[in-house]
Amino acid sequence: MRIVVLAGGIGGARFLRGLQSAVPDADITVIGNTGDDIHLFGLKVCPDLDTVMYTLGGGINEDQGWGRTDESFTVKEELAAYGVGPTWFGLGDRDFATHIVRTQMLGAGYPLSAVTEALCDRWQPGVRLLPMSDDRVETHVAITDSQTGERRVVHFQEYWVRMRAAVDAEAVVPVGAEQAKPAPGVLEAIAAADVILFPPSNPVVSVGTILAVPGIREAVAAAGAPVVGLSPIVGGAPVRGMADKVLAAVGVESTAAAVALHYGPELLDGWLVDTADAEAVTEVEAAGITCRAVPLMMTDLAATAEMARAALELAEASR
Amino acid sequence: MRIVVLAGGIGGARFLRGLQSAVPDADITVIGNTGDDIHLFGLKVCPDLDTVMYTLGGGINEDQGWGRTDESFTVKEELAAYGVGPTWFGLGDRDFATHIVRTQMLGAGYPLSAVTEALCDRWQPGVRLLPMSDDRVETHVAITDSQTGERRVVHFQEYWVRMRAAVDAEAVVPVGAEQAKPAPGVLEAIAAADVILFPPSNPVVSVGTILAVPGIREAVAAAGAPVVGLSPIVGGAPVRGMADKVLAAVGVESTAAAVALHYGPELLDGWLVDTADAEAVTEVEAAGITCRAVPLMMTDLAATAEMARAALELAEASR
Repeated sequence: MRIVVLAGGIGGARFLRGLQSAVPDADITVIGNTGDDIHLFGLKVCPDLDTVMYTLGGGINEDQGWGRTDESFTVKEELAAYGVGPTWFGLGDRDFATHIVRTQMLGAGYPLSAVTEALCDRWQPGVRLLPMSDDRVETHVAITDSQTGERRVVHFQEYWVRMRAAVDAEAVVPVGAEQAKPAPGVLEAIAAADVILFPPSNPVVSVGTILAVPGIREAVAAAGAPVVGLSPIVGGAPVRGMADKVLAAVGVESTAAAVALHYGPELLDGWLVDTADAEAVTEVEAAGITCRAVPLMMTDLAATAEMARAALELAEASR
Repeated sequence: MRIVVLAGGIGGARFLRGLQSAVPDADITVIGNTGDDIHLFGLKVCPDLDTVMYTLGGGINEDQGWGRTDESFTVKEELAAYGVGPTWFGLGDRDFATHIVRTQMLGAGYPLSAVTEALCDRWQPGVRLLPMSDDRVETHVAITDSQTGERRVVHFQEYWVRMRAAVDAEAVVPVGAEQAKPAPGVLEAIAAADVILFPPSNPVVSVGTILAVPGIREAVAAAGAPVVGLSPIVGGAPVRGMADKVLAAVGVESTAAAVALHYGPELLDGWLVDTADAEAVTEVEAAGITCRAVPLMMTDLAATAEMARAALELAEASR
């Protein structure tokens, strides 16, 4: 079974681990969001790709869900001693090595997809991990500065990590997406898939950014395979993260039904909501999307695998 | 008193510490060798500049004479786990931060001299540290491969650190030196100096490389200030390092007298040899260079300060 998953960071990575547990023999291609990518200290950092790679490769810090386990922060402390920031982005020593290798390979002319493959040679994540694009895309967020009252634009990471989404996101723009091309293999994987899944990743800045690369949304819509998503919103709030902030920026309510309708029946064949949102089933199905209510809390691997199984069953049912 | 010192790495840095101790109020400008510079992992590494900066700034690993004290090697181990080398060059985590800052600033368009000044803002070495040039110069060494019997050219660091100078250096070439220009302030410092010193640094790949930048040798020769050198060779062997290997490549014997004659009376007004080499005094003076025999082992700060005092006294005597 060939499964294609459009994944962001922590939520996507954890879902993928459940999916691997549910169908260990499946051939899984992950199309990873690169809109979160940022240049820090002259190095190219790809937080979402790395979170997937570390999580599936056994290198993740399980407690925080990102970064390396058994991490130290000597380089970061030394950079701060030079007065070089930002200090709000937590790059550890082990993690730095990944960004150093990536930056060196990119500098030598390799595209990000080839670099990602080389990094995965070490981690053996058990999936084929493709960046959504080899072209640079950076999600920017428009905010009103709470100090000055002026409108300004910040990098998504600055909004998310430094500001902790404490002010409203007035607009979310994947800069460069319009000119980006899908990375080699992306459209082919979508066309050849037996099932396409949207994990409970952020619908705006993770899955939404992937779909913003011209050709990817169209390929998903045109795919013969059923497309099933899992709601990242449970009981009117994001399970983790601050998805409500960026949903508001695109005029979407933070409800399981509203996110389904935001993707729409052009993309989605099936949608899973949490049992707490069972009342959403009717509304989603009225829009032409098959919907089921099942437990959607990724509390442990078994629960997550059960969610993956439910998604695959819903895919079969909507075939 | 304005003192200009042409310095390599460990020997130069230790001598400078003695000089600072001997004349704490002196205005010292260090012209640092950059021929040892190497790109590793996409980062610009300047071993000699950093050794001077760390030594005078209190960050050096005192036992080995290079690298940072209290160092860890997490990044290097992780790079090796990616199969990315070289593994023979010992970059520690603290040291990596320096190279990351430098590389980022160079990438942003700052010349190496401005980058070095910015790094020294943290370390406060108590001297003005100038790279010999803002242009890229890399010392290469021609060897005969002991395995294949073929002649090939390696970077100086590969010859020195990886091969530990175990094969003969057949030629030593400071690639790029002919096209390089002295960094801003270098010629001005030489012209304005009251004393110019050659510490017991490597006469070929440290002081020799600095002198290979067009304009620097001429400025030293034309300077009104006395020029005094200290022999890095004691009793027919280098005090530390493998200077004999690279001296042979330029046809110079490993003796205190031969090194003085290699610099020549066009450059040197005075030359200090170790008391073990007292018989060299006559030969050196016959060539027109004032020569004294004094203890030249930098066993501790007091002994090194005494060497610096002897050099300054010889400068006064040859004025």
